[in-house]
Amino acid sequence: MEFTSKLIEQAVGHFSSLPGVGKKSALRYVLHLIKQDEQGIINFSNTLKALKQDLKFCKNCHTISDNDICEVCANPIRNHQLVCVVQDYRDVMAIENTGLYKGVYHVLGGLISPMEGIGPSNLTVDSLINKVANQDVTEIILALNATMEGETTSFFIFKKLAAYPVTLSAIARGIAVGEELEYTDEVTLGRSIINRIPYNNSLAR
Amino acid sequence: MEFTSKLIEQAVGHFSSLPGVGKKSALRYVLHLIKQDEQGIINFSNTLKALKQDLKFCKNCHTISDNDICEVCANPIRNHQLVCVVQDYRDVMAIENTGLYKGVYHVLGGLISPMEGIGPSNLTVDSLINKVANQDVTEIILALNATMEGETTSFFIFKKLAAYPVTLSAIARGIAVGEELEYTDEVTLGRSIINRIPYNNSLAR
Repeated sequence: MEFTSKLIEQAVGHFSSLPGVGKKSALRYVLHLIKQDEQGIINFSNTLKALKQDLKFCKNCHTISDNDICEVCANPIRNHQLVCVVQDYRDVMAIENTGLYKGVYHVLGGLISPMEGIGPSNLTVDSLINKVANQDVTEIILALNATMEGETTSFFIFKKLAAYPVTLSAIARGIAVGEELEYTDEVTLGRSIINRIPYNNSLAR
Repeated sequence: MEFTSKLIEQAVGHFSSLPGVGKKSALRYVLHLIKQDEQGIINFSNTLKALKQDLKFCKNCHTISDNDICEVCANPIRNHQLVCVVQDYRDVMAIENTGLYKGVYHVLGGLISPMEGIGPSNLTVDSLINKVANQDVTEIILALNATMEGETTSFFIFKKLAAYPVTLSAIARGIAVGEELEYTDEVTLGRSIINRIPYNNSLAR
């Protein structure tokens, strides 16, 4: 793709560096922005700058926050003895949106992935172990992706926490609500039979 | 979608205002940007600001350009008597990429669309008529989209230029190269039969 303007080329370059955005989409975004009023673009530009300069991470759970301690950690009603370990901020949002979890979180900031050069030292695993060692934590829920990286990270944390008197659990893997048995992959179906749970009325909603 | 950070919410708002970007994609972009180094984000932010402040439009053909006169208009080898009328900058790029057009362009900046409140006064139609009246233009090629808005705009320009001794042509509508007759819509197929052209060897590439 050849551009007649260096500025457009630069802007397209920046937008197409975003995940899943190609040059054609990037150009569409840029041409859309050109048509907007100046204040809107300046606000957009300032927000981007602020993202790097003003964004804070909760000192307790490492999630993105406007303050030093996030809303969840600062909430006295939440159960601070129950810690749910997740990969990133999006997972916190996803679990919060269910409205069913009353504990707190611990955001790892990624998953162990030798392929991408991410080891335990790039994550907040040490902070999690400190938390278990020094704070009153009774249960850790591992809520990581059901991928190779997720399983590796879960196992790493399991080994690291083996010496501490804390209950370790993992979120249930199984057939999604509304999904048909026939089309479920065999690994998931197999696990859902082995990890079957007692049937009770509250499940039949 | 509820955010625990106002800054993230603002950034997601800006990205999701782009055409075809939803809140989930916008959040993905924002989380990607947070992980980048500071200089990259500052460059992105500055480029956005420059887009509105430094971007120029060619005084002759109204395309986006880094200078007062764009590269195509400034090129003495191009045929300045032949003017191709297009909707926007992307169409200039698309035609330039064919490498087959040696004339110059005239960018309208949109199409007449009463639904969106865009009339001839919002476009560069007057500038086109001035060009035909005062400069040595022999042929105008209408290369607008084959939509209601495109046809309306073409017809409007046709009426406005009727008084001037200039040849008016339109790009050929027909079956795309590589497309099958069977799956072509009847309007296109009908037009391609009515507007058939003499067969010669150069077509059989």
